[in-house]
Amino acid sequence: MEYHGGNIYEHNKAIIDFSSNINPLGVPQCFKGALLKGIADFSVYPDREYKKLRQNIARYIGNISIENIIPGNGAVDIIYRALEAIEYKSLYISTPTFSEYKRAGEKVKMAVKEINLYEQEYEKIDLGGLIENIKEQSVVLLCNPNNPTGTLIEKTEFLELLKNLQKTKSFLIIDEAFIEFAPKFKDASMVEFISQYDNLLIIRAATKFFGMPGIRLGYGITSNIGLINSIERNMEPWSVNTAAEIAASCIFDDHEYIKATLDWIGSERRYLYQKLSELNGLKVYSSSSNFLFLKLLDEKMDAYGLQEKLLEYNILIRLPKGFSGVSRYNFRIAIKDRKNNDILISSLKEVIETDNI
Amino acid sequence: MEYHGGNIYEHNKAIIDFSSNINPLGVPQCFKGALLKGIADFSVYPDREYKKLRQNIARYIGNISIENIIPGNGAVDIIYRALEAIEYKSLYISTPTFSEYKRAGEKVKMAVKEINLYEQEYEKIDLGGLIENIKEQSVVLLCNPNNPTGTLIEKTEFLELLKNLQKTKSFLIIDEAFIEFAPKFKDASMVEFISQYDNLLIIRAATKFFGMPGIRLGYGITSNIGLINSIERNMEPWSVNTAAEIAASCIFDDHEYIKATLDWIGSERRYLYQKLSELNGLKVYSSSSNFLFLKLLDEKMDAYGLQEKLLEYNILIRLPKGFSGVSRYNFRIAIKDRKNNDILISSLKEVIETDNI
Repeated sequence: MEYHGGNIYEHNKAIIDFSSNINPLGVPQCFKGALLKGIADFSVYPDREYKKLRQNIARYIGNISIENIIPGNGAVDIIYRALEAIEYKSLYISTPTFSEYKRAGEKVKMAVKEINLYEQEYEKIDLGGLIENIKEQSVVLLCNPNNPTGTLIEKTEFLELLKNLQKTKSFLIIDEAFIEFAPKFKDASMVEFISQYDNLLIIRAATKFFGMPGIRLGYGITSNIGLINSIERNMEPWSVNTAAEIAASCIFDDHEYIKATLDWIGSERRYLYQKLSELNGLKVYSSSSNFLFLKLLDEKMDAYGLQEKLLEYNILIRLPKGFSGVSRYNFRIAIKDRKNNDILISSLKEVIETDNI
Repeated sequence: MEYHGGNIYEHNKAIIDFSSNINPLGVPQCFKGALLKGIADFSVYPDREYKKLRQNIARYIGNISIENIIPGNGAVDIIYRALEAIEYKSLYISTPTFSEYKRAGEKVKMAVKEINLYEQEYEKIDLGGLIENIKEQSVVLLCNPNNPTGTLIEKTEFLELLKNLQKTKSFLIIDEAFIEFAPKFKDASMVEFISQYDNLLIIRAATKFFGMPGIRLGYGITSNIGLINSIERNMEPWSVNTAAEIAASCIFDDHEYIKATLDWIGSERRYLYQKLSELNGLKVYSSSSNFLFLKLLDEKMDAYGLQEKLLEYNILIRLPKGFSGVSRYNFRIAIKDRKNNDILISSLKEVIETDNI
């Protein structure tokens, strides 16, 4: 099986894991208390309708009815079940992107079409090229901001795409797993348009922003009740576990955690981007997420060589493996707290500027 | 969506839920401490290979290599992924049984063949009738002990079936979700035969015996590494959550809980069976599990009418809905602790013997 990040479980020593995009603030404080209080809840089956869970999510999203929300065992569960439910033949994805999209499409036997819509700098995406090519009854699946490039797609681009997809009876799925890390994320999200477009499904995850990938909680948002019903029919019962239900009962109201996370990402993204940009032989792409996409400019060392050298500094980076359309000189790093970011900066500086002469 | 048990979340008042088959001893004591100690584990992704988890399961099962174990998001996750992975055309199930088997088979577009192999009393199953009918490349999926009848299948029956399935290149899946409740369960389990038959997959759940359906932890056991690899290819990444990993790190060594559960099921199953058998107008089938299957003999009231009346006593029973081949006079109840069992006995006595004259 191919893994997304570097697998920290393969390494015996203590590793600073820059390969996984996790909020370094860790698990929200409220979760511990809520778990203790809710320990007996593990002794009963979760509500198959997940009513309270959907209420908590709806309150967090705002201006949305619980009927428009479907929770799953992580965002990947929603991705797989949605593609199964839609039952269209073609899936369009924009490379490079999260490898599970292709895997999910192939699993349900869709024809997966990978299109590179980026200009060289990964700063902008041109959906126009996509619009021209879409066949009837297709699904377009885009990650916003995109993993691994960090690119944010403009709303106007999405709206243009949506209108065109309506004409071809096609569907747009936007994976907003990282949207809360984007500057002014409430403006960046497409969630306000779900009532306007019933060919739109937005996927979110509680695991990224709230620093708890271990709970496995993702959810889909759409005004298309037919789609929600089909996804439900394709889902296994009790797909969301009790720890995820408990987390959702407190994290969305943890305003202290939310503020601290927004403060952290705002300042550390800027800091790390600037410091890494100053290094010779390294291209840093601008990012609207909690990770940075980079490229080694000096072809004497590729990302695989770099990973090996950085492991001597106990640092694990994300290799380009599994991402279509990137070179072996590309890699991705998570943005961490100042202390760890500084360790990365100085280690990279030593490896690139000193070792690599 | 159709639900298995009665849905306690539909009712506003405090309900004694006899519709879900859960260990009344609740969550093992060790889980609380382990959760607190492991809270930071929620902030990282689970190990995609689930090495420690599989080690814990292997130690619990005994005489087994971790390569033979595949964990999933509850037993249902393994059922769905296994049928997807095997890719055969026919699925044979013995009715009445757990409704997810049929649902899973239909989802992967198998021809689902429901056969009633029971004699009138549900005490014995005759696999001979099944053997005669099996086509090449089929899957037989049997629940042992069976839900909802509580019937235990003899090993000699299974071995005869396995030999015949080898000839037709067919597969046997045994769902042992309730096996630990069976008398002398280590003898009753077919797990010792996995190395001998590579057309055998056994499915277990940590949720039933250990009273924690909320953690979602099931696992498959097979010596067929090709099958394990195919199931893995069909699985979503990180399907098992951190709470399940934490639970598995302690519950299997909680010998006090295991002993208490075995003591409880041994005495309460006998007690409840005897007391309910004494009631007029009620047939109680013998059971090797933590639930009893029953039938109202007086046709003036069916299980739906009974459910309504028992709700006045705050008692929820499992309706026959969703089980093929049973009558509307059948119902199922979970075995609970003495206090609640006594409440059930006296309430049933009142409803059946008094109200129903």
